Amino acid sequence: MEKVNLSEKFNLFEEFWTPKIAGELNDQYIKLAKTKGEFVWHKHDDEDEFFLVMHGALTIKLRDKNIHLEPGEFLIVPKGVEHKPVSEHEAHVLVFEPKNTKHTGDVESEITVKKFDWI
Amino acid sequence: MEKVNLSEKFNLFEEFWTPKIAGELNDQYIKLAKTKGEFVWHKHDDEDEFFLVMHGALTIKLRDKNIHLEPGEFLIVPKGVEHKPVSEHEAHVLVFEPKNTKHTGDVESEITVKKFDWI
Repeated sequence: MEKVNLSEKFNLFEEFWTPKIAGELNDQYIKLAKTKGEFVWHKHDDEDEFFLVMHGALTIKLRDKNIHLEPGEFLIVPKGVEHKPVSEHEAHVLVFEPKNTKHTGDVESEITVKKFDWI
Repeated sequence: MEKVNLSEKFNLFEEFWTPKIAGELNDQYIKLAKTKGEFVWHKHDDEDEFFLVMHGALTIKLRDKNIHLEPGEFLIVPKGVEHKPVSEHEAHVLVFEPKNTKHTGDVESEITVKKFDWI
């Protein structure tokens, strides 16, 4: 049982859109993602997702609006809602979601990560 | 579906050890707690708890050691583990835990909150 320093963990990897697992609780994972550029449109039929920006800025595009997140701001995307995360510049994001959440939800893409690594 | 700015939410209340609900997902709550002084020793038999310090410092006392958390650091306290959060000075903490988690777990105290308010 050890604490986790988010900055130290973010310094351990470089890849964008490849979340790493930093903690596990109540069948949920705490994941750390570096974002830059565009992710794919997708939805999760059964899982709500929490995004908290720690560094940089992340925009969550929805079909009817865009939500821009700065450090210290979070958004919960409810199950079934199509979304597309984008970051103009590098951002660091903490994600909280059920363990069985698929990376790109209902779509499969060349960027889909099928197995998440712990960091 | 709106974003939440943590600093703005923390500015809306003053009470210590009285977490407010700032979000809900997958039968879990996102809670915001202001901490200062000592909480009570307790455990949760069925729920793991996540503590992320956003401002100030929080120490989680365990029976065999103390874990000191600064901003950007988190700790997951597994179910069944006795713990006592303490802060010498005011701190702001983000908590993830199942919706049915009791404030002071297996003990009841004069500081026990039985119904959490949304903020």
